[in-house]
Amino acid sequence: MTLSAERYAEFDAFLLELNRASGAAILPLFRADHGLVNKLESGFDPVTEADKGAERAIRALIAERYPDHGVIGEEYGEDRPDAEFVWVLDPVDGTRAFIAGLPLWTTLIGLRHEGRPILGSIGQPYLDEIYIGGKATGSRLVGRGTETPLRVRPCPKLTEAIICTTDPAILTGPELGSWTQVRAAARLARLGLDAYGYAMVAMGKLDLALDTGLKVWDVEGVIPVVEGAGGIVTDWHGRPARTDSGKFAFAGDPACLEEALVTLRRSAVD
Amino acid sequence: MTLSAERYAEFDAFLLELNRASGAAILPLFRADHGLVNKLESGFDPVTEADKGAERAIRALIAERYPDHGVIGEEYGEDRPDAEFVWVLDPVDGTRAFIAGLPLWTTLIGLRHEGRPILGSIGQPYLDEIYIGGKATGSRLVGRGTETPLRVRPCPKLTEAIICTTDPAILTGPELGSWTQVRAAARLARLGLDAYGYAMVAMGKLDLALDTGLKVWDVEGVIPVVEGAGGIVTDWHGRPARTDSGKFAFAGDPACLEEALVTLRRSAVD
Repeated sequence: MTLSAERYAEFDAFLLELNRASGAAILPLFRADHGLVNKLESGFDPVTEADKGAERAIRALIAERYPDHGVIGEEYGEDRPDAEFVWVLDPVDGTRAFIAGLPLWTTLIGLRHEGRPILGSIGQPYLDEIYIGGKATGSRLVGRGTETPLRVRPCPKLTEAIICTTDPAILTGPELGSWTQVRAAARLARLGLDAYGYAMVAMGKLDLALDTGLKVWDVEGVIPVVEGAGGIVTDWHGRPARTDSGKFAFAGDPACLEEALVTLRRSAVD
Repeated sequence: MTLSAERYAEFDAFLLELNRASGAAILPLFRADHGLVNKLESGFDPVTEADKGAERAIRALIAERYPDHGVIGEEYGEDRPDAEFVWVLDPVDGTRAFIAGLPLWTTLIGLRHEGRPILGSIGQPYLDEIYIGGKATGSRLVGRGTETPLRVRPCPKLTEAIICTTDPAILTGPELGSWTQVRAAARLARLGLDAYGYAMVAMGKLDLALDTGLKVWDVEGVIPVVEGAGGIVTDWHGRPARTDSGKFAFAGDPACLEEALVTLRRSAVD
């Protein structure tokens, strides 16, 4: 069922409120002693008190305002994941940037209606930036005292594209081969951005962001923002984004994406 | 000859003034149409109008206030490079970040006295951050309504270190071998930071930054900030930083640096 404009406006305002609450929980811990612990015994997957505190703050607001809505969060699991409305959260995406003092971590919050992501936000409270929107409403950047529409830019050729991936060192051999070949064709590559790179696609500053190993909370807040700015999100086969593959392409121009997919499909085994 | 505390205070205040003028020239062009041109016909080395406009603004202020001082800048060359005082500038370090819309570019300004870098700053006006200082005065972060002392952190072992390099893809084979080995030992690596990573070393959030191909204007504003925070800057042999090698290590703890140098020296042919 399609939602009314009033309903979208209501959820949009609530999403901004969630971002503010999340920022209030996280910012005092950014660049401070943030209770670092390793989530996985193998490898390095830091979880900070910031992450947990922000998710608790967000969940408390949702429970108060919309007690029948579901919530899926990175830190505290699933509540009512089959509800009509489900909020999908990653309070600190880019925890590695966070612990290194870099203002490139983001708070990702998406709203799913009847199984489809319809509204989302990418927030960076240290920068006072909230990238927010969805297909029905369009996307915009809220913050620093103003609001600016977000629009992807045309980029018909991969050779003109600015692209990014978070870290080539975490790619498998076939994935690294694909990335290396796409990078060799592209005009410029940036690294280390996590979801902030996807926001730059929505803003029309980057043309293509490629990442792997993404979980549902890494993408459900992002997909509506990119699509609301006129962009496209697929897996590495070019199929509509499915979170179970974990491999995602966030693109501004489908022509540029199509060129990259010729290479990406070779490593898209799943 | 050693300068008086009054002289340091005077230059510190002027350096903040230069940063503000530079930010005023650059910020209106950040994320806007910025007149991109390629400086080199081979490869991609963008120079923006922002870079040029900011260097003109900085040079005008220096010429007005200290007409006998020298200036060395990336865009407009050398004036009186053998003067007692020489200002060394890179208005937009990290132009690739700049054109990709990322607030990781910085304005680097150093003051050389009798050939030695004595005071420097790493400014990021979109973040309202100026990392400033030198050995004689100590270093601090100025901005966002406050001032905070900068201090590197202890990190006696490379296995505990957070390290960075700007882009492994621009390293030569031997350099890449060294980087890969150092990264394999380190706790965590970050990429794509240019001089913002060096500021994070001074802040005690990163432990070791390794880069190559650095020019005099990429480092002379940085060295005093890192040293003033208790850090150390060397080439990849571990010798006091010399700009002609272009290979630099910015470290918080000499013990961590020493471990990395065992590997780095293998590729430090110059």
